Amino acid sequence: MMNETAIGIDIGGTNTVMGLVDREGSILKRHIIPTDTHPDYSIYMNSLCAAIDTLISKEGSETSIRGIGVGAPNGNYYNGTIEFAPNLKFKGVVPVVDFLRERYPMEVIVLTNDANAAAIGEMIYGGAKGMRDFIMITLGTGVGSGIVVNGEMVYGHDGFAGEIGHTIVDPKGRKCGCGRRGCLETYTSAQGIKRTVFELLAEMTEPSALRKVSFENLSAHMIDEAARSGDPIALEAFDRTGRVLGLKLADAVAHTSPSAIFLFGGLAQAGDLIFKPVQHYMEEYMLNIFKNKVKLLPSKLPPGDAAILGASALVWKEVDISKR
Amino acid sequence: MMNETAIGIDIGGTNTVMGLVDREGSILKRHIIPTDTHPDYSIYMNSLCAAIDTLISKEGSETSIRGIGVGAPNGNYYNGTIEFAPNLKFKGVVPVVDFLRERYPMEVIVLTNDANAAAIGEMIYGGAKGMRDFIMITLGTGVGSGIVVNGEMVYGHDGFAGEIGHTIVDPKGRKCGCGRRGCLETYTSAQGIKRTVFELLAEMTEPSALRKVSFENLSAHMIDEAARSGDPIALEAFDRTGRVLGLKLADAVAHTSPSAIFLFGGLAQAGDLIFKPVQHYMEEYMLNIFKNKVKLLPSKLPPGDAAILGASALVWKEVDISKR
Repeated sequence: MMNETAIGIDIGGTNTVMGLVDREGSILKRHIIPTDTHPDYSIYMNSLCAAIDTLISKEGSETSIRGIGVGAPNGNYYNGTIEFAPNLKFKGVVPVVDFLRERYPMEVIVLTNDANAAAIGEMIYGGAKGMRDFIMITLGTGVGSGIVVNGEMVYGHDGFAGEIGHTIVDPKGRKCGCGRRGCLETYTSAQGIKRTVFELLAEMTEPSALRKVSFENLSAHMIDEAARSGDPIALEAFDRTGRVLGLKLADAVAHTSPSAIFLFGGLAQAGDLIFKPVQHYMEEYMLNIFKNKVKLLPSKLPPGDAAILGASALVWKEVDISKR
Repeated sequence: MMNETAIGIDIGGTNTVMGLVDREGSILKRHIIPTDTHPDYSIYMNSLCAAIDTLISKEGSETSIRGIGVGAPNGNYYNGTIEFAPNLKFKGVVPVVDFLRERYPMEVIVLTNDANAAAIGEMIYGGAKGMRDFIMITLGTGVGSGIVVNGEMVYGHDGFAGEIGHTIVDPKGRKCGCGRRGCLETYTSAQGIKRTVFELLAEMTEPSALRKVSFENLSAHMIDEAARSGDPIALEAFDRTGRVLGLKLADAVAHTSPSAIFLFGGLAQAGDLIFKPVQHYMEEYMLNIFKNKVKLLPSKLPPGDAAILGASALVWKEVDISKR
């Protein structure tokens, strides 16, 4: 039997990465095109299709391609559209799936937001294999989430469910890119922990290597390095970040009671520095009946390939559903 | 064809109410036994069975009884047990469904917590007919919730999902019966709005009829009446209650994106006094993509019969699932 593959496409603010992926999560062929040089979506979509053609023409011809999965910010599963994505140059509603359907006669062409794609990637290739109830939290430039209940992605009535990054920690808190105040994302994204460091530089008097660095120059990586060398400000910043994330994860558990929560993205790679306080505070803030039940785990998806893998996993998920 | 019925049983802290209910939600026959005079669960279960026998022997013999549904505090759907319910005298884990299975050879015998039963009641007989994604909030002595996603109850990996009443508003806030601080329940239950009134009596200087009433004597009904006559403390108490509930419902929307949220219970019967501020603040605190989409609705279940109806609805839900 011919090896089956799926095309996974991740549309990011700067670049669009894509790959031809087999059932086990091996990426047989990759491609990359810029996203942001194409403010007009039809020009972008044409160059996206040209890139897909390249993937198909090379390795693809030796495999049976089951479909195309697309992960994108503000991606809507029901409509197959990208809707008003603040970090993309396309304006309004972009009908990605309809455009691809006219070009490619594949059985499955599906799109969702990037955090949902990561969750499905974890379920198909990663640490959530066989899990029926779990939550994926992506800690990157923003904070995204994908919620799985009874083995199915929670899309909600409108296709936009799973925005735990925009639950509110403090309604009078930090300004968020979404226009409101105090969203989880303003505390636990890469930018969030940086804001916490600056709050602590003002609040605490301890010496710190981070006192030499401007707001613009400070990176999450520098905070990580400072913490590893025992810097008191950096360590406290991780503790506070863990407390806020633990608090809102305890709330999330009270909603869907998952057996595990996976952390993915830059901040998750800080390892124990972030996992220990998150675990500690999540347990502290959790209702009794949920305590000591929920596993807090690092994503098993390889960081560099997670976006392509998650997008391609969308295809296998649909194929599995239609098999039932 | 013989009229089909289901037995609905609601186990409350004081009384257990039950009824024989047809597919349209008409209660053909009712019965009530005390719960709290039976600290030993096997004695209680025997008198529960005697009561069920009475229901079956009278009207039941003229109908085809499809099953028994039980709503109970800390009811676990997967195990069919009541587990460590703080408001019941039974200690530990009570295997209600196993006990009933030994007595009654019915195809469906099922148990869940009271708020989940209310949600399923709303779906089978009430305002959520045909809705695939909604949330039920019960505002009573405590605050319960039932979350429905893709037409299915969210039970979580352990059967305890849907505890929105124990999401945290303020980790340094009011002490909760659950042992933690700042749970939604401490602000928006009947007791919660009373606590808010006392906070406001201290904070504000306006005259108020409520200044004449002791904490022990104040009832949610008196706050309702005071608000209707324009009492500034009572009105502010409803506004604050609505703000806190609106905030946490906005968080709930960010999790599962329901098309509607139903409010049920004593406080919900205050009508516009509570619905208007909840709606206002929920919209204010909601992420843009969710704004002006989520209907906030009063439950359509008759307050006096909701518990029996919800419990009986569990049976129809199972019958519907097995039909697929």
